[in-house]
Amino acid sequence: MKKELLEVGYAVPRQDARAKVTGEEKYALDHYPENLLWAGAKRAGVAHGRILEIDFAAAEALPGVFAVLTRKDVPGTNRQGIVHKDQPVLAGERVRHRGDPVALVLAENREVLAQALSLIRVEIEPLPAVFDPEEALKPDAPRIHERGNLLLHAKIEKGKAEEAFSECAVVVVETFEAPCQEHCFLETENGVAWQEPDGKIVMIVSTQAPFRDRFEIAHALGLEAGSIRIISPYLGGAFGGKDGATVQCLLALAALHAQGRPVKMWWEREESFAAGYKRHAARMYYRAGARADGTLHALQCRLYYDSGAYAHLGGEVLELGMEHAGGPYRIPHTDIEGWCVYTNNPIGGAMRGFGVCQVSFAFERVMDLLAAKLGLDPLDFRLKNALQRGDRNCTGVTLVHSTGIVPCLEALKRHALWTGREKWKLSAGPFKKRGAGLAAVFNAMGYGRGLPDSAVAKVEFTPEGRFRIYSGVPDMGQGNATAFLQIAGEILCQDASRLELIQPDTERCLPAGSSSAGRTTYTFGNALIRACREMKAKLCHRAALVLMADEERGFALLPGKVRHLPSGRDVDLDFLARLLPEADRSSVGQTVMPVSQDVPDTGKGFIIGFPHVFFSYAAHLAYVEIDELTGKIEVREYLAVTEGGRVINPQGFEQQVHGAVAQGIGYALMEQVALDQGQILNPNFADYLLPTSLDVPDIVSVSVETVEPTGPFGMKGIGEVGANAPVPAIAGAVEDAIGVRLTRSPFTGGRVLSMLEETP
Amino acid sequence: MKKELLEVGYAVPRQDARAKVTGEEKYALDHYPENLLWAGAKRAGVAHGRILEIDFAAAEALPGVFAVLTRKDVPGTNRQGIVHKDQPVLAGERVRHRGDPVALVLAENREVLAQALSLIRVEIEPLPAVFDPEEALKPDAPRIHERGNLLLHAKIEKGKAEEAFSECAVVVVETFEAPCQEHCFLETENGVAWQEPDGKIVMIVSTQAPFRDRFEIAHALGLEAGSIRIISPYLGGAFGGKDGATVQCLLALAALHAQGRPVKMWWEREESFAAGYKRHAARMYYRAGARADGTLHALQCRLYYDSGAYAHLGGEVLELGMEHAGGPYRIPHTDIEGWCVYTNNPIGGAMRGFGVCQVSFAFERVMDLLAAKLGLDPLDFRLKNALQRGDRNCTGVTLVHSTGIVPCLEALKRHALWTGREKWKLSAGPFKKRGAGLAAVFNAMGYGRGLPDSAVAKVEFTPEGRFRIYSGVPDMGQGNATAFLQIAGEILCQDASRLELIQPDTERCLPAGSSSAGRTTYTFGNALIRACREMKAKLCHRAALVLMADEERGFALLPGKVRHLPSGRDVDLDFLARLLPEADRSSVGQTVMPVSQDVPDTGKGFIIGFPHVFFSYAAHLAYVEIDELTGKIEVREYLAVTEGGRVINPQGFEQQVHGAVAQGIGYALMEQVALDQGQILNPNFADYLLPTSLDVPDIVSVSVETVEPTGPFGMKGIGEVGANAPVPAIAGAVEDAIGVRLTRSPFTGGRVLSMLEETP
Repeated sequence: MKKELLEVGYAVPRQDARAKVTGEEKYALDHYPENLLWAGAKRAGVAHGRILEIDFAAAEALPGVFAVLTRKDVPGTNRQGIVHKDQPVLAGERVRHRGDPVALVLAENREVLAQALSLIRVEIEPLPAVFDPEEALKPDAPRIHERGNLLLHAKIEKGKAEEAFSECAVVVVETFEAPCQEHCFLETENGVAWQEPDGKIVMIVSTQAPFRDRFEIAHALGLEAGSIRIISPYLGGAFGGKDGATVQCLLALAALHAQGRPVKMWWEREESFAAGYKRHAARMYYRAGARADGTLHALQCRLYYDSGAYAHLGGEVLELGMEHAGGPYRIPHTDIEGWCVYTNNPIGGAMRGFGVCQVSFAFERVMDLLAAKLGLDPLDFRLKNALQRGDRNCTGVTLVHSTGIVPCLEALKRHALWTGREKWKLSAGPFKKRGAGLAAVFNAMGYGRGLPDSAVAKVEFTPEGRFRIYSGVPDMGQGNATAFLQIAGEILCQDASRLELIQPDTERCLPAGSSSAGRTTYTFGNALIRACREMKAKLCHRAALVLMADEERGFALLPGKVRHLPSGRDVDLDFLARLLPEADRSSVGQTVMPVSQDVPDTGKGFIIGFPHVFFSYAAHLAYVEIDELTGKIEVREYLAVTEGGRVINPQGFEQQVHGAVAQGIGYALMEQVALDQGQILNPNFADYLLPTSLDVPDIVSVSVETVEPTGPFGMKGIGEVGANAPVPAIAGAVEDAIGVRLTRSPFTGGRVLSMLEETP
Repeated sequence: MKKELLEVGYAVPRQDARAKVTGEEKYALDHYPENLLWAGAKRAGVAHGRILEIDFAAAEALPGVFAVLTRKDVPGTNRQGIVHKDQPVLAGERVRHRGDPVALVLAENREVLAQALSLIRVEIEPLPAVFDPEEALKPDAPRIHERGNLLLHAKIEKGKAEEAFSECAVVVVETFEAPCQEHCFLETENGVAWQEPDGKIVMIVSTQAPFRDRFEIAHALGLEAGSIRIISPYLGGAFGGKDGATVQCLLALAALHAQGRPVKMWWEREESFAAGYKRHAARMYYRAGARADGTLHALQCRLYYDSGAYAHLGGEVLELGMEHAGGPYRIPHTDIEGWCVYTNNPIGGAMRGFGVCQVSFAFERVMDLLAAKLGLDPLDFRLKNALQRGDRNCTGVTLVHSTGIVPCLEALKRHALWTGREKWKLSAGPFKKRGAGLAAVFNAMGYGRGLPDSAVAKVEFTPEGRFRIYSGVPDMGQGNATAFLQIAGEILCQDASRLELIQPDTERCLPAGSSSAGRTTYTFGNALIRACREMKAKLCHRAALVLMADEERGFALLPGKVRHLPSGRDVDLDFLARLLPEADRSSVGQTVMPVSQDVPDTGKGFIIGFPHVFFSYAAHLAYVEIDELTGKIEVREYLAVTEGGRVINPQGFEQQVHGAVAQGIGYALMEQVALDQGQILNPNFADYLLPTSLDVPDIVSVSVETVEPTGPFGMKGIGEVGANAPVPAIAGAVEDAIGVRLTRSPFTGGRVLSMLEETP
């Protein structure tokens, strides 16, 4: 590492970049312990059915096969799931989607493993299946779980929406559909695990929630959480898809049967598609009205989210969608109702935007339609209705924290891309049409009420006089590790050579929740600030003892030393380190994110997470060009204005915005898990298209720096908000360009072309 | 232990009482490891001389003698001392007082040890010696140390004292003498030490400063401080006499030569008299003047403190005497000069009252004399001049902390013993005379400027769900251990069964300075409060995680559990304890006592400790009856009003006051280390008289509860202040009774009788 001060507010390069680029950094995937066994799951291949027989005699007999395990080998409840534990580790009697694992094979190498899996014969009696949430709610629909197909039904009712519509000058009614999206992380689900002689299970795994994993595994397999150690190296992407158990329970089960040998499980891309969690497909019925003066007045919407075969975080994803269903606007009357429904599709789960992505599409398009009906500029209409601090949002919660959608919209309004849009549109080439579209979005931060959004951070002053930060939250690539080093460097005033960050390890680090929900840097950062401040006070105090100073004032922590400023005398950290006993060399800081003190009675049926009180905001502008001959949409320019409090690292901030917008553009233009009777038709990157760098324009990122006083150095999480705007902004731009109203994403060339052809 | 809540402000019984009374508690003295060797020192027996030869052949040859060590066996600097390192571990060329050790014997048992010591022949060429500090300052005095006989000469000059005397209506000039006093702790100096296979020296020793001891031993013997472990059990008394190395360096030296066997050293009473530290004898020349309106106006004094052969804390003791030389009064003009001087007497050191005891005698008598000359009531005269917050004291420091001498005097003035004194005096029996005397005193708290008065406290949440407090400051009997348990109990809301206090051990506890200077409970208590508050926050936070509460509000720590008050749900501490990993089970708190922000240029020649800014205050009233036939003084009633901020434990507070007054009465009436050419004439309790319970009246203790906001729960240290008043109060009472002015203590019957006979 270069000798440089790590400070907050600077575009400090990612501290993990060099090790990652050189291959020195080891992801979970890079761990190949000696004497390895490979584990793999036999999948059902049937969307809904009863298991009659699993014949694995041939597989077991295959030389190089170590063990074949089925449901009867699972010692515990056999149930996993973050909130609702309804998903089997190995399906025993029933399969509910094609990816359900029915047997687990341990083999000496991958070739034998593949052969063994192909030799297992699973006889499944098919049951009637259902693949659409609204269908699944019908009384005669096939029953997927004992308790029926409804995972969650919730309502938000504020004011009197039904009556309020009669007071509206304009009303828009529209239905929107957003599909299932795949995370497509580079490093697919994987891990390696072994059982120590004392019975402890050790697992190196690509996970967003190492501390929670212990409890999931323990519950599923009837183990003590304390007897499980999870080590979580840097992740090669996750986006929510590694929040919750993927390989964990299967791997632990394998380790229990591996006689102490390490077992590796690594889902190939096709298995990742089949068994991994996805963004929920949603159908959204919207009705919204505004008064003649241009104020939003009433909103009614009905949301159907497809949970697939199991709950995972489906209820919570729907809830967050409902909380954001009214956009970042003042709406006096709201009536939002949502259903998250089991089907025999692949499992829905957490993904960047977490339910908000879908409703943002719907609501922002509704805003454009209302503005058009009112004859108002869509930006002015948004500005007029934009939430400000002190307002109640669509759930009735009073916004008491930083609320920056107005400055975002104002910054966008001043930007050359906004003022120059008409001119740009005029210079389209032959067979090209150009349009500009706008979206204003927000995204809650943190777990919300009902679950402590908490972190415990530990800083160790090493015997060599360096500082070791024990992170409890993984870095899945978003750059929080560097932010943590900057926070520690800022407070401890040390250069990179004196700072080291330990990635989560449940035995060395302290619990800090998951890397998710835009809360990673906010929550752990606050805990880290406390730990570092305590460490700083400790070192100044101990230096005062060494220098026989009679008070702590005037001491400053500097790179490698503590200085008594009045006298200019220094105490080297190396010296202090040798002096401090083990028991005195660590500081621990803890924090819990504040929650809403409003307890609105607007929400009904919510379980955890409602309501949120912290939000980040963004206003995006997309320039698109449509090829009239192919229907292909090209995003030519993109402006993203983001309000996330103060920025800890401008480079990391921009990278988060760029990544979120790119993922949003993909969701807008091409990404869709294509399903036929629960079968994925495009489980690979030849058929499932992702935007490449050529599909993504140079994204202009503008940060509106407000301050969130409760955040670490005033920051808020902004990893998700940027993913919510591209779909509506691009749809708006398309309508601006060619007058076509897109209500189903993705906006593929074929779809656009067929609509163009339908348009008179 | 009884199951009871330990809380601040209650007269909680000493938590160590039962174990001490039953003999279960082990003092250092009670440690008799297997395979013990006994160590003993051969003492010089000559006050000043040059060592010509030490012949220990006969001793060495004695069966059962393990080793005989002399100066040449000392590996390091051979120098010990807290501030000035001028005292040899084993004298090599020169002896400076009769108690200087010249050889160290290790033997299999005490009988052989005694015989071996008697067989050692030390040939010493006597040098001219000096035993009076003023004599020792003369140019032709025998030179005791290379740098001469002056240890410290310092001045305090505020205003223009010399000129101010001409503005005085009344002036008093008087000379006072106070003798050397012995600590007379029950448990004499002792310890046991051994060297571990890895070279580490482990020592269980009766000490007031375990953490500092390591550095003293390391310096003296050329060891690494980190290779020394000091364990300090409860002390059987100390009073300052175990502040600094007594047996420590000798024992460590012995351990280095004992081939891993434990070595015990235990000074018998006579050796404790000969080699231990004592209260400094002082001669004090006072001149003080007041204006006609009864305001103190000028003070001049010259103080000579006898340091004996070595420095120990002599300079600091003199300095504290000088800081208090003007009493707790406003005096615009002061001129205080002091000399601490080497002589060939036994070594002076720290003792309860630490230099203040002596000047209190002088100044309070001067106050009586001035009041008499002015025709004022001595109490009213004191009240008129008593310091209040915002005043500058006699050193020029502005008093910004609690300053309670006025409420003390007012409480005394209202008390029946004050209002009824004249009536009591009239009812003396035949050949008895009665008088009442008054003294107002104060005593600084803490190390003062120049040395950090600092503590680090650690609280551990044990795997069993109990709390272990690691004290860094010994309990020498004053009861701080109980105060610490109360502080922890108050904050953690736990009963005694859940709290455990670990006495200092440099390997288990963290550095917290010495048990001395009235700073023990103040400084460590503040650190402990921080550690406990952090622990409480930690447990509430972790309980919030367990209960999935979304915030920490509403959680309360209760005996054995954490309760979420809004829901009434509990988390047992036992359960939490099993959940918390080792790394998360401790809290550390640290503190540094505030120092004076005044930097008066009044003081010259001070090294460390000047000035102080915290003081405790007291006003005492003594009723004495004198037997006209024998001169014997009997203290019949005694009232002690004390201001020490808020009281943590009223019982402990009263015990401290009682003990201090009893020790003060002893110093007033009978205690004096009688010296003849440096030889102690009364080195035992047959000849050195201590007050017994029959010599001490029932002491009435009144607490004037102010608050010191910087103190733990508002407290200040009061262990010392009470020792300063008995001498002047009793002397005043004697003058009140029989008109005899006593200026030399102790006020023995013989001395009073001879003065009575001289009185016309």
